[in-house]
Amino acid sequence: MLIREVRVTPVAFRDPPLLNAMGVHQPWALRTIVEVVTDEGLTGLGETYGDLDHLEKVRDAAASITGLDVYHHNAVYAAVAAAVGADVVTDLHGLTGAASRVKTVDRVFSPFEVACLDIKGKAADRPVVDLLGGRVRDAVPYSAYLFYKWAGHPGAPEDAFGPALDPAGLVEQARVFVGRYGFQSIKLKGGVLPPRQEAEAILALREAFPEHPLRLDPNAVWSVDTSIEVGRRLAGVLEYLEDPTDGIDGMARVAGEVPMPLATNMCVVTPEHLPEAIERRAIGVLLIDHHYWGGLVRSAHIATLCATFGIELSMHSNSHLGISLAAMTHLAAATPSITHACDTHTPWQDGQDVIAPGALRFADGAVPVPDGPGLGVELDRDALAVMNEQYEKCGIRARDDVTYMRAVDPSFSTRRPRW
Amino acid sequence: MLIREVRVTPVAFRDPPLLNAMGVHQPWALRTIVEVVTDEGLTGLGETYGDLDHLEKVRDAAASITGLDVYHHNAVYAAVAAAVGADVVTDLHGLTGAASRVKTVDRVFSPFEVACLDIKGKAADRPVVDLLGGRVRDAVPYSAYLFYKWAGHPGAPEDAFGPALDPAGLVEQARVFVGRYGFQSIKLKGGVLPPRQEAEAILALREAFPEHPLRLDPNAVWSVDTSIEVGRRLAGVLEYLEDPTDGIDGMARVAGEVPMPLATNMCVVTPEHLPEAIERRAIGVLLIDHHYWGGLVRSAHIATLCATFGIELSMHSNSHLGISLAAMTHLAAATPSITHACDTHTPWQDGQDVIAPGALRFADGAVPVPDGPGLGVELDRDALAVMNEQYEKCGIRARDDVTYMRAVDPSFSTRRPRW
Ligand SMILES: [Mg+2]
Ligand SMILES: [Mg+2]
Repeated sequence: MLIREVRVTPVAFRDPPLLNAMGVHQPWALRTIVEVVTDEGLTGLGETYGDLDHLEKVRDAAASITGLDVYHHNAVYAAVAAAVGADVVTDLHGLTGAASRVKTVDRVFSPFEVACLDIKGKAADRPVVDLLGGRVRDAVPYSAYLFYKWAGHPGAPEDAFGPALDPAGLVEQARVFVGRYGFQSIKLKGGVLPPRQEAEAILALREAFPEHPLRLDPNAVWSVDTSIEVGRRLAGVLEYLEDPTDGIDGMARVAGEVPMPLATNMCVVTPEHLPEAIERRAIGVLLIDHHYWGGLVRSAHIATLCATFGIELSMHSNSHLGISLAAMTHLAAATPSITHACDTHTPWQDGQDVIAPGALRFADGAVPVPDGPGLGVELDRDALAVMNEQYEKCGIRARDDVTYMRAVDPSFSTRRPRW
Repeated sequence: MLIREVRVTPVAFRDPPLLNAMGVHQPWALRTIVEVVTDEGLTGLGETYGDLDHLEKVRDAAASITGLDVYHHNAVYAAVAAAVGADVVTDLHGLTGAASRVKTVDRVFSPFEVACLDIKGKAADRPVVDLLGGRVRDAVPYSAYLFYKWAGHPGAPEDAFGPALDPAGLVEQARVFVGRYGFQSIKLKGGVLPPRQEAEAILALREAFPEHPLRLDPNAVWSVDTSIEVGRRLAGVLEYLEDPTDGIDGMARVAGEVPMPLATNMCVVTPEHLPEAIERRAIGVLLIDHHYWGGLVRSAHIATLCATFGIELSMHSNSHLGISLAAMTHLAAATPSITHACDTHTPWQDGQDVIAPGALRFADGAVPVPDGPGLGVELDRDALAVMNEQYEKCGIRARDDVTYMRAVDPSFSTRRPRW
């Protein structure tokens, strides 16, 4: 079953002004949609980042894997690695940790791996979850992913979500998300306001949602001392504290002094980081993300590694569409040790998608594993064309939260630690 | 694709009087052959240990997995775990380390997992190696596995292999194996004679085979001091020193004092042992064995873990037949980090097998990955019937090298350390 053709399509979709430690989401979020077509006419889907430097690597890799067998992941990986060469692609936003060659290869490989799994599932008439060992849960719980946000983009009218710049605004946002999707865990993207205010927001969420596990993620802009202070203040309140401070060394120093586990998708972002993080006991929870951990099978391997060392698992999310949500759901459904609700940006996409409606839905905050073969989702070609046109017109070629924020607040600093 | 029936057949085959730290191989070696049959009529093969306590667990598990889907490894594993319950099955020979509940479950699960992979491969018309990510090598190198041995079993005439009780005998044995199979690595099972004599045997092998990587495995019967002394004496001669002494603590103390890596299939035999072994830097090479590491996929996960921590991989072998050799070959062919030649007892079986001839062969010491779908081997029902009859008649129900040795030498001691 040979790869005959690979189509690579960048897309853009509207994104609200979500605030984070590196600035604010631009009006358009970018993704790249990958279609792998075999000599037998089966098509597999993958989804990855849309930044131009990455997109170009994906295109190079796409050319290099044509002719390979969809079963030969090792060969596809080798071809991708050769196409990437010695290059390291760095994100401008820096919200998923340091760039490296391994991470660059793993990120470029991921959508092709997912597409190959989609094809193999279709060929065997089995969902991808079955290629990963079969489901250990019928639906994958996700968290309500709250953001501080402006009412709308600068110069634009208020968006559908409205403002959230204080505890009351976040509680209201949580009520909407929990009401609409049934989420049973809540995550707050922090690193935006002074830590004391963010801790107050968490306490307000605790009061409004006494039973929901709560998480706070300041994206590593706190000092070690601030992290310890906030961590202690939120004792018994947080399920975990995510990336309070920068680096394995800083995280290790915090971990020993706060009562809750520390989670990360920043200081441990490739296998290379795991030995030191484990030796230093820096983290209690890893937020796996198949988009940069080299696809679903490699993520499953890492899940076993983490389980072996007593590291719990949750799942990281960037802004994404339905192909990614399907892939995330299949992986989490097959992975016993992903016991924390996974993160997703899906609600913020407000229905925009490249896949045909109906395959994915939320019930009680969880996405039931799609039943269909492969990923169980189908491309909506009209939607893809529209989103590709949006990409062509939007003028954004890389996610750059910092520059967009500085257009509003020229003094905005990315200094770490900020507090 | 549901499991409709599972057939479990114990077999026995002639085994030469191979000496080791726990005594001597009995005249018959036991294995259990597992056949999983689906509702669509596909059959998958697995092979595991033949000891009665284990066989009974395999039979219990076989009953409990009927009706499950061959794709649902997680569900099959859960059913096996439930069938095993809290029981721990212990080997009499102790040559693969401590028993535990996890190890018991992993051992019982393994043949079913291999059989399910065989079925999935047949259904997709793909070799098992392709279900594991595709081949990174076309043929899997194995080592010449040398043993001290008697000329024949007590009271029986000299066997086809003849005696090997000194360096000259081992060199001759190596010449036969290397000549017949083309092996390019050599392993000596030690722990039989005083360490100085075994070191002399290694030096004799080095002289006779200047280019072959050499290994010595005394099965943990040396003290820490002896291990260090022998290790230093064999500096520059051994590829690795395998289980010189007992336990992670002892191995860690030796590892810091000898120039070559230490390998193990005794102090690290389940995932539970890895964190301490890694923290203590006790081992440089893990000898993976899918028969007790829970099958091929779980072994692949452990391979990633080891690669992440810089632990190299080889493969352990007990006496086995062709179904196991096929499974070992598919796993090693798909696993980049198995860079050391794997161990196999195959030559000692002298052609006895339950599989039809032709699928497996050695070329230059390596087994080419079978091309056929699934494992690529077929059961020879006549041979299976003969070997099952041998099992019924041989009177052996568990491997017990110690008791067999004591029938010859009543003073034989299993004391550790012996030297
Ligand atoms: Mg994060
Ligand atoms: Mg050994």
